Amino acid sequence: MSKFKDINQVFALIEDDLKETETAFTRYLGSEIDLIPKIGEHIILSGGKRLRPALLILTCSMLGDNRQTGTLLAAVIEFIHTATLLHDDVVDEADMRRGLAAANTIWGNEASVLVGDFLFAMAFDMAVDQGSMATLKSISTATRRLAEGEILELMKTADISTSIDDYIKIIDGKTAILMATACEVGAITAGVEVEQQLKMKEFGHCLGIAFQMMDDILDYNSCEENLGKTIGIDLEEGKVTLPLIHTLQHSLPEEREKINEIITSDYVSREDFNFVHSLMIKNKSLEHTTTEAASYLKKAHLILDEFPDSQEKEALRFITDYVLNRDR
Amino acid sequence: MSKFKDINQVFALIEDDLKETETAFTRYLGSEIDLIPKIGEHIILSGGKRLRPALLILTCSMLGDNRQTGTLLAAVIEFIHTATLLHDDVVDEADMRRGLAAANTIWGNEASVLVGDFLFAMAFDMAVDQGSMATLKSISTATRRLAEGEILELMKTADISTSIDDYIKIIDGKTAILMATACEVGAITAGVEVEQQLKMKEFGHCLGIAFQMMDDILDYNSCEENLGKTIGIDLEEGKVTLPLIHTLQHSLPEEREKINEIITSDYVSREDFNFVHSLMIKNKSLEHTTTEAASYLKKAHLILDEFPDSQEKEALRFITDYVLNRDR
Repeated sequence: MSKFKDINQVFALIEDDLKETETAFTRYLGSEIDLIPKIGEHIILSGGKRLRPALLILTCSMLGDNRQTGTLLAAVIEFIHTATLLHDDVVDEADMRRGLAAANTIWGNEASVLVGDFLFAMAFDMAVDQGSMATLKSISTATRRLAEGEILELMKTADISTSIDDYIKIIDGKTAILMATACEVGAITAGVEVEQQLKMKEFGHCLGIAFQMMDDILDYNSCEENLGKTIGIDLEEGKVTLPLIHTLQHSLPEEREKINEIITSDYVSREDFNFVHSLMIKNKSLEHTTTEAASYLKKAHLILDEFPDSQEKEALRFITDYVLNRDR
Repeated sequence: MSKFKDINQVFALIEDDLKETETAFTRYLGSEIDLIPKIGEHIILSGGKRLRPALLILTCSMLGDNRQTGTLLAAVIEFIHTATLLHDDVVDEADMRRGLAAANTIWGNEASVLVGDFLFAMAFDMAVDQGSMATLKSISTATRRLAEGEILELMKTADISTSIDDYIKIIDGKTAILMATACEVGAITAGVEVEQQLKMKEFGHCLGIAFQMMDDILDYNSCEENLGKTIGIDLEEGKVTLPLIHTLQHSLPEEREKINEIITSDYVSREDFNFVHSLMIKNKSLEHTTTEAASYLKKAHLILDEFPDSQEKEALRFITDYVLNRDR
């Protein structure tokens, strides 16, 4: 029986460290060029869950300790994550982000691109000051693979022939790799052997894959208020995610043709959304995706089992359960 | 009397090294995600002058030798430069780049943003593999300051109160810092003392400031065919450069008002351009800018004078003369 009942209790466990990470956000966003703190703080202080910093800090704290470096490297990872959000909103032409107006709709695409670049560069600059070569290698490779994942996603936009293999590559790049790196960097910072670093990297990878799969379910299954973004946005943006791939595999040719029409059109009506959604219900595509996510989380559990018991381990385990059960 | 008569003779001196750098471009752009080599090669192999790689290689070779690392780090610097070009074209909504269609007009802003991100990340990934912490620090700080310079430029768009101080900060970030880093990294790679590294960094800084000043003159003074881009584009994009700042300082209130109208409007007619251009002629603003650039190049010469004579030193000196006299 877990001592944690709520994800907020997990964050409370590392409250002091997360506060130091938040302080680092403000410090490193400070610039005489005032558009940088303005846009940076708009997006970074607008209430993201700090899941990646938490993964890094919990891993570091579970395996050893090196708090000061850990909290700064947690800020590095969150800066990279935030940079990708800024660039994603330009790419997706998004209007909303975490229930607030997306930065590009307030300050324009130009500012979002350039402040995103600043955050990437600042993240590397901070990592060079704080990290070892092993940390830098983990972060630079992750950032490269992140870009590759996003480019593959762009290329597969509205392509109903997207395979499960393509899908896994996309979500590995756009989501899992940065969580894997957060855990790996946490382990490197704690000073453990490479074998343990790689185990925690794999833990983060499995968690990240499951996290994105559940996110892709929520896009079809949540209500607008809860997720803070419009429901069915993946369909409108032409993102071919696992629930849709599964449904396409189990649909009749005329149904596939209709889905193709919907996903390639600029506007998706409520009726279109309901058509796709009802096929997903019929084909149990959301259940299938949940089962897939659960199998990745099972792997994550098995990895954690190899480490000695601790509060932090329990917290990491609770995060995996939270990923499977979250409704937003 | 210089042994060089033509900039191509300078490049011929380091032909083998530049070829290795070009080979690195192709190797590191290779990806199973074929949009990456497609866009990457479109922009990077479309005939840029390779000025930054040449600065790095010549500095490294003048001060010592470490060819293999030098040619790879030259590719790193050019990747960063190319990434900023891709993002600039999105920011400027440019249609042309080096006489070819800009990548964003062929593949869209989304692809330009993401492939730019890939190039930044790949540059860091390569630098981590090849470089020392000193190299990484130079590159990461330069990339951050590059983003800051571009953001400041964006903020000062169409602002006729832009000061000379703002202008210098902008061109330091957007142009000089990467040339400074190319020279600094060349010196680090050659293995010389920090004092000499900083001298060469200052050389690159002075060269870069002068280079951008001459570029800003060319925007008013070149013909379309030569520069491979439309004349007067700075005015249309609202870029307040030194020739314009100088003319604003020497104009009557009604002339300033007219310039303000022109620079804040979306479309600049031939007549508008001629109005501004004739004021620049009257106020000798282009000559003034040339004089300023020449004073930076004089500093660059004085720095070079401190190093022993060599072919490479002569080549670097020729580059400074070329910057002042180029017509494109």
